[in-house]
Amino acid sequence: MLHPIFAALLALLLAAGPAGIQPAPPAQEKVDLLVAQGTVVTMDVNRRVLESGAVAVRGNRIIAVGDSAALNERYVAARTISARGMLVLPGLVNTHTHAPMVLFRGIANDVSLMDWLQKYIFPAEARNVTRDFVEWGTALACLEMIRSGTTTFADMYYFEDDVAAATARAGMRAVLGETIIGAPSPDSKTPEEAIAYTERFIRRWKGHALISPAVSPHAPYTNSAETLRACKRLADRYGVRMTIHVSETRDEVKQIRERYGATPTQWLKEIGVLGPNVLFCHAVWLSDEDFAIIAEQQIGISHNPESNMMLASGTAPVARLLSMGITVGLGTDGAVSNNNLDMFEAMDFAGKLQKLANMDPTALSAVQVLEMATLGGARALGLEKEIGSLEPGKKADLILVDAEGARALPLYDPYAQIVYALKGSDVRTSLIDGKVVLEQDRVLTLDEPAVKARAGEYQVKVARSLGR
Amino acid sequence: MLHPIFAALLALLLAAGPAGIQPAPPAQEKVDLLVAQGTVVTMDVNRRVLESGAVAVRGNRIIAVGDSAALNERYVAARTISARGMLVLPGLVNTHTHAPMVLFRGIANDVSLMDWLQKYIFPAEARNVTRDFVEWGTALACLEMIRSGTTTFADMYYFEDDVAAATARAGMRAVLGETIIGAPSPDSKTPEEAIAYTERFIRRWKGHALISPAVSPHAPYTNSAETLRACKRLADRYGVRMTIHVSETRDEVKQIRERYGATPTQWLKEIGVLGPNVLFCHAVWLSDEDFAIIAEQQIGISHNPESNMMLASGTAPVARLLSMGITVGLGTDGAVSNNNLDMFEAMDFAGKLQKLANMDPTALSAVQVLEMATLGGARALGLEKEIGSLEPGKKADLILVDAEGARALPLYDPYAQIVYALKGSDVRTSLIDGKVVLEQDRVLTLDEPAVKARAGEYQVKVARSLGR
Repeated sequence: MLHPIFAALLALLLAAGPAGIQPAPPAQEKVDLLVAQGTVVTMDVNRRVLESGAVAVRGNRIIAVGDSAALNERYVAARTISARGMLVLPGLVNTHTHAPMVLFRGIANDVSLMDWLQKYIFPAEARNVTRDFVEWGTALACLEMIRSGTTTFADMYYFEDDVAAATARAGMRAVLGETIIGAPSPDSKTPEEAIAYTERFIRRWKGHALISPAVSPHAPYTNSAETLRACKRLADRYGVRMTIHVSETRDEVKQIRERYGATPTQWLKEIGVLGPNVLFCHAVWLSDEDFAIIAEQQIGISHNPESNMMLASGTAPVARLLSMGITVGLGTDGAVSNNNLDMFEAMDFAGKLQKLANMDPTALSAVQVLEMATLGGARALGLEKEIGSLEPGKKADLILVDAEGARALPLYDPYAQIVYALKGSDVRTSLIDGKVVLEQDRVLTLDEPAVKARAGEYQVKVARSLGR
Repeated sequence: MLHPIFAALLALLLAAGPAGIQPAPPAQEKVDLLVAQGTVVTMDVNRRVLESGAVAVRGNRIIAVGDSAALNERYVAARTISARGMLVLPGLVNTHTHAPMVLFRGIANDVSLMDWLQKYIFPAEARNVTRDFVEWGTALACLEMIRSGTTTFADMYYFEDDVAAATARAGMRAVLGETIIGAPSPDSKTPEEAIAYTERFIRRWKGHALISPAVSPHAPYTNSAETLRACKRLADRYGVRMTIHVSETRDEVKQIRERYGATPTQWLKEIGVLGPNVLFCHAVWLSDEDFAIIAEQQIGISHNPESNMMLASGTAPVARLLSMGITVGLGTDGAVSNNNLDMFEAMDFAGKLQKLANMDPTALSAVQVLEMATLGGARALGLEKEIGSLEPGKKADLILVDAEGARALPLYDPYAQIVYALKGSDVRTSLIDGKVVLEQDRVLTLDEPAVKARAGEYQVKVARSLGR
């Protein structure tokens, strides 16, 4: 039945006739894209989950997140993507990888770390890593990452300029740093050369819509204090991130103790290279004092559970780091020590590993894990104002995940479903910087057959280079 | 150019004319199915991997495994399935689950074991588990398992007769046991009732092509010595498996020690219920003497890494068990403590977890993990003469796994790829007992929309029953 006031209005309108007074329809704003009718997992400060939610996008930004019917009324969208039966999440943030190494996926497994490095990884790199290798390796990595829901990744490798170019072409967001290491590398004879490369790299890419350059000294045990200080100065001067492997293995901690009488974290503090723009990758072996330093210096942590398990490095004290308010993001590490680049796997492992390591099923919750994979990762990379949650003003980086597959039913708790049950292969659509990069099982930004063909060629070349 | 001998033969034939002497073509045997041109990972005693291999199937048996061209010449196949670009593996064997509980997937996560059981699982079971629930839960579980490459599973739940019927309809192979527990259950008031149910169940299903009945007392801490002895006698009388949860948690070991002054394994030996037809599920907390008993009694072990991590139960000593020659299979456990039924995940977790737990990346190799998921599982279930490897005479249970996806390239080592990189969603085709059950992304044996619709109905019902 009509409410009397509406009935009266209706009578008035009918009386006025077609040329009469009509209430002006509310002005509808134009948007480029409306992702509509999905279950929107915002990861905003209130951790809102919108049952029939929508996200409105203009250009490369989210301009509204809310009820689907309401947004549909408020906006005229040039394009609408239905998210019916889907979960809509912030794109996943992979805080640590070596993307081009995906071309070495599986060359060395189930071997000791020293054999892994010295018999396989170093020789394979010395004999194969070129600009072309890096270009196609990055393309293959982006293909796998896009398909499995990652929209941003942090990388540390060689020929990083080619990583950047390939990543930008793939339409992915990334924080990229040339590896600076105190030994000859595939593209630098000395760390000074790598630092010079890095400075050119920063100047070239700073301000790019997708690529954030970084300074990436390999580790405390592979670089001198002088090199590390030069790295930090460079990062500070240009206002970029410094990413570094720290306390990955017991052996590393032992080496640094022997050399400097301090833990890696203590030593890095002593030589003055810590601060809020620093990201520690791994941080598995930490002393009580290390925790205090990390908190006080506002260091971000990249946690890589699968790599730490695969290489038997140990279990990072993630629950304790989080309880101290330290920023923790998730990562896959390179595909040689994982052997995949799938952040859904990283989430599942991270959650289950902390429960086991703490012998406490409440040690880490699914929502905390998803936070590490989204907003925590964004924070760790200094990008929390731009990405990591679905909120007006942020960049439009989001994924649609099928919530109606066999493994997705029933759905009692979206966070638990995402972390423990859903898989990278359930990602159906991906938007990065407002652009659709994955749609209906097709990656729009990459020539998939060409990338795969090239991977096949490198497979033969790499195998031969190792005498197989 | 023709070889002279062929040229001579040709000349002879031509001279003889159409009615002349022709060499009789080799007699070709008929087969029902030829899976051709795949990379066949046999898991046979020589661990052969055939580069362009084929598997010939007649009825429900494999009759040949070999070079694709050779088999193509030897056999005329009623149907040929191309496995080009695929890995062909024995179907995966999930040695422990509670299939119908998939309808509770995600009702309780990140909570302590006691809360998990008492606040969620037990009330949810008491209020919801009926024959209908079990039927549709099993169907949903089979859907997920078939899609992710499992061809055989071992189950322990209630209304097991309905589990069996639904499993047989889904075309899956299974070892099924009604839970026998010293407390009222959804379908038995006493363990005696459950034992009587089990005997009827065994008589009904023994000899079925797909279903092997078993006797499944829940655990040492939930059953009396008398019940356990009755279970073992029943299993022995009918020549079936006895499956039981043993030493899953430290708490359980403590309880049994307090009650009987022995470990669960010791106590089970003392009361005379061990033997080669017994499968221990979990076996996380074992004393040195337990290891010796397990070896001497030829007990099989079902290892469930994800559940043990999720519930913070602990890490099963798998590397040590295997080094003693003890049979170990892999399992997912129920979807409430995982939260998926995907054996590819179980493999990835099992491999990485042993490396970490032993702080040794060589602790468990990828081929050992795949063995646990195939032949080891078959042995643990007493089915090693029928399934677990691709060999002539065995049942035709096999899967085709896409080896050309983004995460599947490059391919240096098929075992590492299967265990660490490939996923359940890469399974394209599945054959169980000679019948195609999964083909081109379609499960042929189940009405998928109906199963999913019913799961949606149970989602509402279960949530309400828990006051949500």
